[in-house]
Amino acid sequence: MSRSATGQAAVIATADALERFARDVFVRAGMPEAHAGIVADVLVWADLRGVESHGVMRIPRYVELIGAGDLNPTPAMSVRTETAAAVLIEADRAAGPVAMTSAMTAAVRKAREAGVGLALVRGTTHTGALGYYTLMAAQEGMAALALAGTVPLMAYHGARAAGVGTSPISIAVPGGDRGPVVLDMGMGLISMGKLVQARKTGQPIPEGWALDGHGDPATDPRAARIPLPLGGPKGSGLSLMIECITSLVVSNPILAEALEGTAEGRRHKQNGLALAIDLARFGDPRSFRREVDRLIRALKALPRDPDVDEILMPGERGSRTLERRRREGIPIPRAIFEELKAVADRLGLPMFPLTAS
Amino acid sequence: MSRSATGQAAVIATADALERFARDVFVRAGMPEAHAGIVADVLVWADLRGVESHGVMRIPRYVELIGAGDLNPTPAMSVRTETAAAVLIEADRAAGPVAMTSAMTAAVRKAREAGVGLALVRGTTHTGALGYYTLMAAQEGMAALALAGTVPLMAYHGARAAGVGTSPISIAVPGGDRGPVVLDMGMGLISMGKLVQARKTGQPIPEGWALDGHGDPATDPRAARIPLPLGGPKGSGLSLMIECITSLVVSNPILAEALEGTAEGRRHKQNGLALAIDLARFGDPRSFRREVDRLIRALKALPRDPDVDEILMPGERGSRTLERRRREGIPIPRAIFEELKAVADRLGLPMFPLTAS
Repeated sequence: MSRSATGQAAVIATADALERFARDVFVRAGMPEAHAGIVADVLVWADLRGVESHGVMRIPRYVELIGAGDLNPTPAMSVRTETAAAVLIEADRAAGPVAMTSAMTAAVRKAREAGVGLALVRGTTHTGALGYYTLMAAQEGMAALALAGTVPLMAYHGARAAGVGTSPISIAVPGGDRGPVVLDMGMGLISMGKLVQARKTGQPIPEGWALDGHGDPATDPRAARIPLPLGGPKGSGLSLMIECITSLVVSNPILAEALEGTAEGRRHKQNGLALAIDLARFGDPRSFRREVDRLIRALKALPRDPDVDEILMPGERGSRTLERRRREGIPIPRAIFEELKAVADRLGLPMFPLTAS
Repeated sequence: MSRSATGQAAVIATADALERFARDVFVRAGMPEAHAGIVADVLVWADLRGVESHGVMRIPRYVELIGAGDLNPTPAMSVRTETAAAVLIEADRAAGPVAMTSAMTAAVRKAREAGVGLALVRGTTHTGALGYYTLMAAQEGMAALALAGTVPLMAYHGARAAGVGTSPISIAVPGGDRGPVVLDMGMGLISMGKLVQARKTGQPIPEGWALDGHGDPATDPRAARIPLPLGGPKGSGLSLMIECITSLVVSNPILAEALEGTAEGRRHKQNGLALAIDLARFGDPRSFRREVDRLIRALKALPRDPDVDEILMPGERGSRTLERRRREGIPIPRAIFEELKAVADRLGLPMFPLTAS
């Protein structure tokens, strides 16, 4: 019996097996093959990088969203506005990975033409691990930014309740020998995924990181529900601005609808933003890559805090996990395996093969 | 005798008087009248908003930078690259406010043409309060972002030394009845300005916010020198990415040069980025403004943390300070007044008139 990172009993499967399984599930749930493949790829990529909260454990929820009509498996995505450097994509409740890969592809195309490219995504669903999309662009020689406007789950500074989203942000740039640098972070001192994980493992939450359901400070993992923002007003302020430049720009408010408790506010949805800057238009891309590596070398050579093993770059731990998991497979906690099996049974699909259990 | 916010003895001057004084100083130091007026306006705006660390107290340093040849009072700024949606401005060591207002003006112009506009600024000096530039754009109906690549003053997560900049970021959007919302923040748990202030007032630094000059954790304000980043790897990761997308994009590295201790790395410089999104191209700007106000109302209606007096929006406290200081004048700590007087004496200029002392 293997153990997952959280110490729970786990089975092991290859990335390929999980990807095929996820694709089959989404096809059976009504998606065209190509869309199902994109969603599967984005989810398994997160598992490979060790971001399990954005991996295949989301499959049951995505299928549920399809059933509820909140995720449209056959969306009629359309370009609502197009300018020399930007597009606004009406996503028609497409799966987040479908809308966001399409958006980043458009942003990269626009950036090649106009130096900078912006794609706004209106009305998608869970956008998944944003680093997937910025990495896509970095591999095309772009610096890239991705944002998502999400439901209120995090405390607004000064409030005893969730008021803003955890508002993920990803920025990526190409690198040299070390490959691209990919930052992918939320605005909370702790992610929703880690709160859920702590509830399962019983590990206490550090003081000042979360509130309970009544808005009181909580360190008990069974009680903690609402992450507090990075740096108080800074993290929640950034989150508020991200709602403005993702959701309000495309006339699809998420926070106000949810906070006012409207019918629309109770439905799951997200908005997204993808921005690409074509490095080749502003300098020599090879020199950019060399400079990224030079900067990394300089930072890694700084005197190290004895409490850390190593000075790490954004995304570095995830890249290593990805290399290891490509070789050794991906651990799936037994509880998640059972949830996935229930979905497979319901859809009449076989489970993915295991390499170890 | 008045007292400033830090409890120090202070004199009071009107914004107009300070602006005229600052303009006269910079003209005498060699700037054309128009440039001197821009720098004066940006500095006094920061004082009006209560961000004294970016206000007229910077005058002696700016004059010193001119003397050292690091700030060019008569820059030959030029557009090095121009695309349909972007410009790269070679700033020729112009004063930050001169380069950044020019950049935001270009970003807004490009955004009107192409939906989104990007201006990259290569080789300027202290960019000042970035909120000034994003507010300029918000007043033109744009959502705007400004970034600055700055010298290593903040700890990189896991290091016992300064490795990255405090990397200010500002985002602003137009609002309705309440006016624009302007976020303007650095990536540190405490700003350099507040560290200096604490040294003067003797107020202890909260635990975990700063390191001393040897890289050890410091709460003693006389010892604390290096701010720690927001959320550890998150704040320092964002700062690293900001260096990549401001400095490395324009082939003008700041961090690596400084960390390696090259001759170039010892000179003061900054790079900047201004981005504007034309709201009218993607929706109805009046509805955008209404939605911003609606969101603010919803957030202010949340149950309040008893430890705060009020749930505040980004920039709200600064706007109130600005209104009050426009009426009542700006307090200048006596020590700063003396430093400004020394500059005036050296340049043969009279001091600004006081409304109270």
